[in-house]
Amino acid sequence: MARVLILGGGFSGVFTAKNLAKSAPAGTEVVLVSETNYFTFQPLLPEVAAGALSASDSVTQLRQLLKGQNVKVVQAEVLNVDFSAKTVTVTQGSKRRIKDMRYDQLVIAMGQVVRLDRVPGLAEHSFPVKTTAHAHRLRNHVINCLEYADGLEDTEVRKRLLTFVVIGAGFSGVETIGEVKDMIDRSLKFYPNIAKDEVRMVLVEFAGRILGELPESLAKYAEKRLQKQGIEIWLNTGVKAASFFNVEMNDGRVIDTSTIVATIGNGASPLIEAMPVDKERGKIKTDAFMRVAGVDGVWAVGDVALIPMKDKKGNDTFAPPTAQFAVREGAQLARNIAASLKGQGLKAFHYVPRGSMASIGNYRAVADAMGVRLSGVLAWLMWRVFYLGMLPGMVTKIRVVIDWVMDLFAPRNLGQISELKTGSAKFMRFTKGQTVFEPGMTANGFYTIVEGSFSICIESAQGGETFKRVLKKGDHFGERVLFRPDKRMHTGRVEALEDSVVLRLEKQDFWNLAHSMPMLENYFRDYIKEKFPKDLQPEGIEPPGEQK
Amino acid sequence: MARVLILGGGFSGVFTAKNLAKSAPAGTEVVLVSETNYFTFQPLLPEVAAGALSASDSVTQLRQLLKGQNVKVVQAEVLNVDFSAKTVTVTQGSKRRIKDMRYDQLVIAMGQVVRLDRVPGLAEHSFPVKTTAHAHRLRNHVINCLEYADGLEDTEVRKRLLTFVVIGAGFSGVETIGEVKDMIDRSLKFYPNIAKDEVRMVLVEFAGRILGELPESLAKYAEKRLQKQGIEIWLNTGVKAASFFNVEMNDGRVIDTSTIVATIGNGASPLIEAMPVDKERGKIKTDAFMRVAGVDGVWAVGDVALIPMKDKKGNDTFAPPTAQFAVREGAQLARNIAASLKGQGLKAFHYVPRGSMASIGNYRAVADAMGVRLSGVLAWLMWRVFYLGMLPGMVTKIRVVIDWVMDLFAPRNLGQISELKTGSAKFMRFTKGQTVFEPGMTANGFYTIVEGSFSICIESAQGGETFKRVLKKGDHFGERVLFRPDKRMHTGRVEALEDSVVLRLEKQDFWNLAHSMPMLENYFRDYIKEKFPKDLQPEGIEPPGEQK
Repeated sequence: MARVLILGGGFSGVFTAKNLAKSAPAGTEVVLVSETNYFTFQPLLPEVAAGALSASDSVTQLRQLLKGQNVKVVQAEVLNVDFSAKTVTVTQGSKRRIKDMRYDQLVIAMGQVVRLDRVPGLAEHSFPVKTTAHAHRLRNHVINCLEYADGLEDTEVRKRLLTFVVIGAGFSGVETIGEVKDMIDRSLKFYPNIAKDEVRMVLVEFAGRILGELPESLAKYAEKRLQKQGIEIWLNTGVKAASFFNVEMNDGRVIDTSTIVATIGNGASPLIEAMPVDKERGKIKTDAFMRVAGVDGVWAVGDVALIPMKDKKGNDTFAPPTAQFAVREGAQLARNIAASLKGQGLKAFHYVPRGSMASIGNYRAVADAMGVRLSGVLAWLMWRVFYLGMLPGMVTKIRVVIDWVMDLFAPRNLGQISELKTGSAKFMRFTKGQTVFEPGMTANGFYTIVEGSFSICIESAQGGETFKRVLKKGDHFGERVLFRPDKRMHTGRVEALEDSVVLRLEKQDFWNLAHSMPMLENYFRDYIKEKFPKDLQPEGIEPPGEQK
Repeated sequence: MARVLILGGGFSGVFTAKNLAKSAPAGTEVVLVSETNYFTFQPLLPEVAAGALSASDSVTQLRQLLKGQNVKVVQAEVLNVDFSAKTVTVTQGSKRRIKDMRYDQLVIAMGQVVRLDRVPGLAEHSFPVKTTAHAHRLRNHVINCLEYADGLEDTEVRKRLLTFVVIGAGFSGVETIGEVKDMIDRSLKFYPNIAKDEVRMVLVEFAGRILGELPESLAKYAEKRLQKQGIEIWLNTGVKAASFFNVEMNDGRVIDTSTIVATIGNGASPLIEAMPVDKERGKIKTDAFMRVAGVDGVWAVGDVALIPMKDKKGNDTFAPPTAQFAVREGAQLARNIAASLKGQGLKAFHYVPRGSMASIGNYRAVADAMGVRLSGVLAWLMWRVFYLGMLPGMVTKIRVVIDWVMDLFAPRNLGQISELKTGSAKFMRFTKGQTVFEPGMTANGFYTIVEGSFSICIESAQGGETFKRVLKKGDHFGERVLFRPDKRMHTGRVEALEDSVVLRLEKQDFWNLAHSMPMLENYFRDYIKEKFPKDLQPEGIEPPGEQK
């Protein structure tokens, strides 16, 4: 029985799975692995950020979406892909136990991640809009700025709080600035001390025009509308650096602001980066059939892939990273995998888009649909109908329509959706005999013993001595594995000898802290060298393979 | 012009403000200070946790709620109350600048906080249900348990993941276990490998019966219904300890579980605890007029206050901590403050409750309304109508009704609402000349320099020497103020000398870590002693005045 493993639960992964379940030979097992249990409909996130829709409008449970489709859904984080052994290593649940999943055919559909590291300070001080958590955070932050500015006399801080900058004028940037502007305009009646002209909004774009995917005439219209709403547009402007207080452009201009929304900077995740396959522009290169060269039975689809195709004039190009294309790519890929399982011929991916549109706030949109160009309120209605059509699930569609209608007539709710202030240092309690780690788990943090005691026991894989010790109050564990990025390294067993309390620091925080404070780094280097037998020592002190 | 400062935006604070704005003498300034910008309608949180309602259904912006009422709303965190100077110290925004607010009359309406520290492990390993963030977290966690268990063969872990324990069988506990049970029952069709009888739910109560505020016959009915739905009820059972893997009862019974919901353990916040006024059972004692003895112009109302009153038989008792009472207390307090401003006599608080009810899940409730006792579907409808009446704002009411109707007919959305994984160690970038701290700010973290350099300058208040130093890569700042709980301590100025990056660790995490690792604690003690002049040194190394 052939097993097809699909990694990723976005448009491309879901549509590959849906279509494959129908067309694959009987007995084929289709498994979709996703880090989240839901599919996010990203085009609606700007409206979630503006409080027009609720977060649940933009997410659909994958099991619900694929119900009755003969697809098995597994919520898990992918740690590693081994192309020669044809296995994918994942963790689930508390994210510590490791599991290998075998595949015959592998579909990589993991999309891209936000990578802002090329601009100093941007990763640290900007708001992306890729998940519902991002949308909530942006919304809460904008409301915070209004709440704080309303009672403030310091004009410098006030100005900073009331200046909102969006980087990138693609669909996401334009829709986000339009929606946030709407939200603020509608909210000012509750903030009597903020004048409308105190609010400044700037849309920054590297190219010479906004909405690069739309015809120029429509983009021009959108530009004019946005400007008429009071949004500044800075074209031909790159971002040089960001800080806690401001954002600096390539041409030297600086905007003082507390709010930088970044809709640029998509890139490969560390997992994709580490894969031994050909890449270009941070994407996995495929052939026209979406096969990945040099590895057997591996396909890539959606934003993660660079798929060659012909445009409508017959010129060579690549499939653009949009939802419309991802849906068609998934369908074609499913046919190709089915054909390959049946020993039939493959077909190159080809699709001529029917059009595209962008909402620009204030009940207006621009659209280019099957050759017809529209702008204004009618285009905005079309935009809504079109996205409604793409939204998965009848219930979600109904909910979104209801929320849209409510939003037309009712004042918007400006109550914040509270977020947990989760510090990364957390106390945990283990009673006598409970195990914190078993051999074969991944290390997930650095543990300091606050109360009680633990035994630690690590058997050497190379037949060296077994490391055994009793750790007491003030001692710590986890430091050794966290200094070694290898996810397969030999972990030991840690067991509470009495009722005990530990303080656990998240692994990335531990690494960042240890690496930033020479005092700490030296302490841990010496500690590991001194305490552990040679063959249990990390080979080098390197950061874990993750981003800041 | 008299200024009345109301601290807290719950039922009691909001209703005091609303009524006072109407009845106070002309020219009275009414200011409501709340840490959140919204009012949370807690009775709906179990339904948010179960995904029947969305988070925004249960929160209403305070400014919207008090619009046109002549009440000024300030979103700020209260750091300190000085009864002799008649000032309240607050921080706003990035929470570093300190501001004093003067008052003539002060209303303390800050409610209670979750205090689980009396049971070892419970604070660390349980889920409270007091905010929308709590509700989201519980919902995400329950869904995680189902997702993980569905693919798992390890029977021990599987059992733990599918066992859900709720501590406390008051309104909140009963409604939460009923709603979560409903959500799981309705969801199992998406988890083909989980059998219904594998899911175990246990409601644990210290008293000899559930729903202590309702007549016994109704509580009995509720018990039977819950049991019929498959919920175990453990009465006369106290909780002794909790851990990462289980919860232990006073009688020695242990339940292996990954989910402990705690609806018990309300207590005084550290701020209230530190106030120099009479307290009993963690509440501020007032007289029958809601005045706080020994301090001039100070009142307390709602859950934070212990208000003496007569019950309907004329016996001495205290006003119970319910929404119904808080609303009436607020109204009476407003009249008393208005009377006091006009020099008229005060009136003692008195209220005979009209009834109470509890929803128990599966479209059923129990109710005791004006002497009539009801249970079942009709009571459940009454429950909904009653709470709808109490919900603030017509728009919210309409949204809730729509969501309720949708939930009757449509499958529930089990997509998780993503939460940000916010580690507490964050990189921040400051450009040349930008200041991290100015004199008079509160310290909010521990900063290590990763790149660049900073100058630090602290002027001594006592006329001692000014402390000046240049800090470079690997150096740190913030450690001195974090070792001193006094929120008014003399902070200095820290300024970037070039474009620089720091790693900031949240203050509580810093303290927890430094205090747990003797190596770190000794290092910082020595560092502070060695580097700073005597009069800038903290008097003792004590934790900041916050909870874990």
